[in-house]
Amino acid sequence: MSSIPPHLVPSRLAKRAQFDKDSIYGILDEALFCTISYVSDGKPFSIPTAFVRYEDKIYVHGSVGSHFIREIEKGIPVCISVTLMDALVVAKSAFHHSINYRSVVIFGVAEKVEDIADKKAAFEWLANKIVPDSWNYLRPVKDNEINKTTALAFSLTEASAKIRTGMPIDEEEDQELPIWSGIIPLQIVRQKPEADSFSRNISLPVHLESNE
Amino acid sequence: MSSIPPHLVPSRLAKRAQFDKDSIYGILDEALFCTISYVSDGKPFSIPTAFVRYEDKIYVHGSVGSHFIREIEKGIPVCISVTLMDALVVAKSAFHHSINYRSVVIFGVAEKVEDIADKKAAFEWLANKIVPDSWNYLRPVKDNEINKTTALAFSLTEASAKIRTGMPIDEEEDQELPIWSGIIPLQIVRQKPEADSFSRNISLPVHLESNE
Repeated sequence: MSSIPPHLVPSRLAKRAQFDKDSIYGILDEALFCTISYVSDGKPFSIPTAFVRYEDKIYVHGSVGSHFIREIEKGIPVCISVTLMDALVVAKSAFHHSINYRSVVIFGVAEKVEDIADKKAAFEWLANKIVPDSWNYLRPVKDNEINKTTALAFSLTEASAKIRTGMPIDEEEDQELPIWSGIIPLQIVRQKPEADSFSRNISLPVHLESNE
Repeated sequence: MSSIPPHLVPSRLAKRAQFDKDSIYGILDEALFCTISYVSDGKPFSIPTAFVRYEDKIYVHGSVGSHFIREIEKGIPVCISVTLMDALVVAKSAFHHSINYRSVVIFGVAEKVEDIADKKAAFEWLANKIVPDSWNYLRPVKDNEINKTTALAFSLTEASAKIRTGMPIDEEEDQELPIWSGIIPLQIVRQKPEADSFSRNISLPVHLESNE
């Protein structure tokens, strides 16, 4: 992320583009899923999937039998998109309505994680991202589960972020109109955990208590 | 959506695929953005953008100068992905962790909306989706704003939904383990509106009151 590849420089709204690690990593670490796009027979395909960033790579996983995994593990070019919606931006005119968002786009190719210990580590990072501190509480992973799952890594060398923050930007001539303008913040809230039928008499573990 | 194109039939988890209008429309009407993927020079690109469904099409918009809009308005194949995250599915083993989600994928090509009244209608549907009942309250749209904005329509003929609901499905041998399992529902919450500096003395309109 030290240099800006020419095809990553946006044609418009260049002021919204960011290439610093803190911005990019912050968005990746907050987002629960990414959308991976790839080309097959000249046509675009895309699929949402969970992911985790660890150091300077992101990791995704899937069944060894998944058509999508088998396509992208070949090392074909992919485009990975991550989007967080922070607020609806309500202007005095529809034309200046917008959305405060933070997004990342990554161009790259999959590297298959082959070593079983490395795969296990990737699954641990993933579990602990989706439910913090959960890995050591769970029934330990089995070798055959690791063997049934493919882990793919993607470098963040060609990653960039786009961020919009702040209030609407109305036309100067509209600013005094008696029309309400501002933002409506959006937040993803984790609600109270709901136990399944096998867990009715099991105490909620400490790492899930913050969701109550 | 009456027939299932062969390339839309998923290779795995076919039970999660749905092709009925109610499922597809419900997801599209709830989601605030879609991710549009397309191919340029043989490589995949994707971009998140707001959209609205009206009858049997979805509509997106963008500046006439946008590189992305100029690429896809040519009528090249696109893949549009929409994802709603409903719950984290916490099993007794990491292997059976999952996510309850509702997603839609649409394959199609853009049709440019040329007629100015049709474009205006698309912008009205879009504004009223993001902020219900807002269009008639706003400063009326101007012809030059309509001319500066491209509206693109996509048919829903090749659309399908994938949905996971319910509790984790653990291995039978794990069901009696003293490990908590269940779901953590996720919800996107619209928070209290924050007025900008031009709206401090303007009453919040009725259509925004439900956000307070």
